[in-house]
Amino acid sequence: MLNNLKRFYKLVLVRHGESSWNKENRFTGWTDVPLTSKGEDEARFGGKALLQKEFQFDIVYTSMLKRAINTMNLILTELKQESLPVVKHWRLNERHYGALQGLNKAETAAKHGDEKVHIWRRSYDIPPPELELNDRRCPSNDPRYAHVPRDILPRTECLKDCVGRVLPFWYDHIAADILRNKQVLVVAHGNSLRGLIKHLDNISDKDIVGLNIPTGVPLVYHLDENLKSTKHYYLMDEKELKAKIEAVANQAKLKN
Amino acid sequence: MLNNLKRFYKLVLVRHGESSWNKENRFTGWTDVPLTSKGEDEARFGGKALLQKEFQFDIVYTSMLKRAINTMNLILTELKQESLPVVKHWRLNERHYGALQGLNKAETAAKHGDEKVHIWRRSYDIPPPELELNDRRCPSNDPRYAHVPRDILPRTECLKDCVGRVLPFWYDHIAADILRNKQVLVVAHGNSLRGLIKHLDNISDKDIVGLNIPTGVPLVYHLDENLKSTKHYYLMDEKELKAKIEAVANQAKLKN
Repeated sequence: MLNNLKRFYKLVLVRHGESSWNKENRFTGWTDVPLTSKGEDEARFGGKALLQKEFQFDIVYTSMLKRAINTMNLILTELKQESLPVVKHWRLNERHYGALQGLNKAETAAKHGDEKVHIWRRSYDIPPPELELNDRRCPSNDPRYAHVPRDILPRTECLKDCVGRVLPFWYDHIAADILRNKQVLVVAHGNSLRGLIKHLDNISDKDIVGLNIPTGVPLVYHLDENLKSTKHYYLMDEKELKAKIEAVANQAKLKN
Repeated sequence: MLNNLKRFYKLVLVRHGESSWNKENRFTGWTDVPLTSKGEDEARFGGKALLQKEFQFDIVYTSMLKRAINTMNLILTELKQESLPVVKHWRLNERHYGALQGLNKAETAAKHGDEKVHIWRRSYDIPPPELELNDRRCPSNDPRYAHVPRDILPRTECLKDCVGRVLPFWYDHIAADILRNKQVLVVAHGNSLRGLIKHLDNISDKDIVGLNIPTGVPLVYHLDENLKSTKHYYLMDEKELKAKIEAVANQAKLKN
């Protein structure tokens, strides 16, 4: 009767809290900026919400960027689950913003024009200009990524590129652990999480660009035996959540 | 001429900062108590000292106890090396203090007599009374250690037992990484570090019991091609170091 055995898995995703460049409205991408104190509070909120619902994890996946790593540390502290194994991987990093990284909205518009900036932000498959190989913002010049073959490290990414490099990590690590009945927590970024969510919920290329994920709010997925979403919900009451999603959407609009 | 190739490795050890039970003078062992704010400062000191000497690590090993994990997190933050891979393992935990865990000096002396307490603390191979299997302090009742076979989890340990369970981790993980030319940082506990140091420096059973390691001060080892110590030094000026080691020794004496 194994075929009738109803399988049901859970997965929790958290987007990191506010970073210093979110606040300054700069294109961040792989730039390794810290959380603001508001961002730290958002992370602690996430940890408390998971504690209240008595989530017990087996493993945590996060990116190689400190705003995600520190969000993860604060969540584990609140949860009293500091001893969990943690894997930090570049495939969960934020979308690489190429030559826009470090520029704010005004600088970018002055350099490239409003229309182009709008396209780079809101299209699924048009990447911003790529970095020169000798640019210090290029991941191949960062010793942290010395263990990653040069030909896979991005010099710019559209959302499609970001989704494409997140999915191998989903299949080989996160999904594999879920299928071994491990309870997995993923702490990552707006666009790397869009990649996972696009896959779990079969969201179209067009719609995924408009999906805004609130920061620091645990997003719980229920998955069927094929690891497709049967339902999902945020661990936050509806009214607060609505205000938070609007704030994220407005911040995104500011950059367009 | 490979035989003449002079090999030389470095290894850095750090003992976690002051914990709340250090302060209260309780037998801590595997009890998962937090750092005090002084302990957090000690950890930051260690990170700054390593940053100043421009240490760049490839991997970090720590225990499953939050006082070591949080010391490690604070060090990586100061070093700006948050993205390093971290492995948390029970074999690097503090010595398990058996039925003494949670008792302070006065309680222990009242229950067992001064002489016995002195023996348990200062002998190499006489363990304190072991915990009953149904005691909630027994690691086999802690879900964090659910992945460890029951028959290897301690119910009490003398220093010899602690050294014995640390060494397999040294050989299979830390030493293996060093031989692959990885720069390794170990953030652990007074007695698990005694285990490593005993091995690296060929310290006798008698002498290792009297070795006091200051908290939060990076201890740098130079190792030869057989991974035996050729020299070691603390990253702290001599006068400060002397005061710190005396303070640790006095705290140890208080419990005897």
